[in-house]
Amino acid sequence: MNLLLLEEADFVAPDRARLSGRRLKHMLEVHRAESGDSLRVGKLGGLMGQGQLLHLGSEYAELSVTLDQPPPAKLPITLLLALPRPKMLRRVLQTVSSMGVPRLVLLNSYRVEKSFWQTPFLEPDAIREQLVLGLEQSRDTVLPEVIIEKRFKPFVEDRLPELASGTLGLIGHPGDYPACPRAVNEPVTLAIGPEGGWIPYEVDLLSNAGLKPVQLGERILRVETAVTALLARLY
Amino acid sequence: MNLLLLEEADFVAPDRARLSGRRLKHMLEVHRAESGDSLRVGKLGGLMGQGQLLHLGSEYAELSVTLDQPPPAKLPITLLLALPRPKMLRRVLQTVSSMGVPRLVLLNSYRVEKSFWQTPFLEPDAIREQLVLGLEQSRDTVLPEVIIEKRFKPFVEDRLPELASGTLGLIGHPGDYPACPRAVNEPVTLAIGPEGGWIPYEVDLLSNAGLKPVQLGERILRVETAVTALLARLY
Repeated sequence: MNLLLLEEADFVAPDRARLSGRRLKHMLEVHRAESGDSLRVGKLGGLMGQGQLLHLGSEYAELSVTLDQPPPAKLPITLLLALPRPKMLRRVLQTVSSMGVPRLVLLNSYRVEKSFWQTPFLEPDAIREQLVLGLEQSRDTVLPEVIIEKRFKPFVEDRLPELASGTLGLIGHPGDYPACPRAVNEPVTLAIGPEGGWIPYEVDLLSNAGLKPVQLGERILRVETAVTALLARLY
Repeated sequence: MNLLLLEEADFVAPDRARLSGRRLKHMLEVHRAESGDSLRVGKLGGLMGQGQLLHLGSEYAELSVTLDQPPPAKLPITLLLALPRPKMLRRVLQTVSSMGVPRLVLLNSYRVEKSFWQTPFLEPDAIREQLVLGLEQSRDTVLPEVIIEKRFKPFVEDRLPELASGTLGLIGHPGDYPACPRAVNEPVTLAIGPEGGWIPYEVDLLSNAGLKPVQLGERILRVETAVTALLARLY
């Protein structure tokens, strides 16, 4: 936790916040904070700044808060991701949030196992928990938007063309394709497939929606690694 | 597992291999392979090619193997990494192996907790296990070399200058430094710090050894994410 993220409900006055639970435990056990210490804080969806610990006890912590800095800029990207397996999903949500992706679409694909859609990690609270961990890690305050699309074809045919309009549309796909571009200075819509990749029919539909396949080399990377590598290369 | 990795001991004839255990289980349960199927195979430290399943039973699998393709090229990099916490260590070893890093130095640092050095995940067999998983993921056959350096100062003062000689030496370090270069076409020695970063004294010693600090932006990334992002940016 590199940023203590405060929510509206934590504020007991405009410049005072009171915490308990997970964040209190972290301050006590990991930061080993003490009264008087100054910590980096941010308000969810708002500014970042400093918090001075007025009280730190086993029940709650109270901070005097000064918020005067904007959060870091997001990347100008919409990421479409074939729904990963549940354990990977949690990590990918943290990665996406920590790297500054503002919009993530979790999408069905032929090679997504049906059981993946049953995971409790897709519940809104579970998604939010991982996104918050990513913000705390990277020092950001703005939650990414997560859109869940259980039907590939209607989404890609009906909604994607508009979503991708005016952006550089890319499909991360191993094979004999151009290399993924570097350091682009335009918005991107990037689609990353499941383990085993998109099937040809899906690549065709994504192409019809304005996205073109690009590759990252011969090596097949895990989804989380591919997401990070593609984002780092693009921006 | 995108590549079935065979070891010397698996070969019952020059072009025949027999497997049991984890890899057999994976073939049966994940690949749902059947006799006659053709699989991508590689020989540890050697060539890659195809294996045809002659026999697949609950006790063992036997393959007829043709090895005729070289493994993918490694990145021209030596990665120095402050020893991560045990759980992260395992994932980082897989990542490093899957991305084609040929040499990894696990290094002490002021902010590495002493207990991290006690983990069983640092045993040679445990390290090898994770590296093999990375090779199977990315389709490579050549294990990275992993060097363990429990003492920062003697390593950085006495061994690093020679190791980094003739390479672009970089320290991944958040702060007011030049941005990490992109798409370099020369060998690199890259040092990535622990959670919380290198301390100034360590940055000084690394600088004296010929490495210079570079940054990836305002966001603080987890070690695994930073490794992937820096490698994807450099190559």
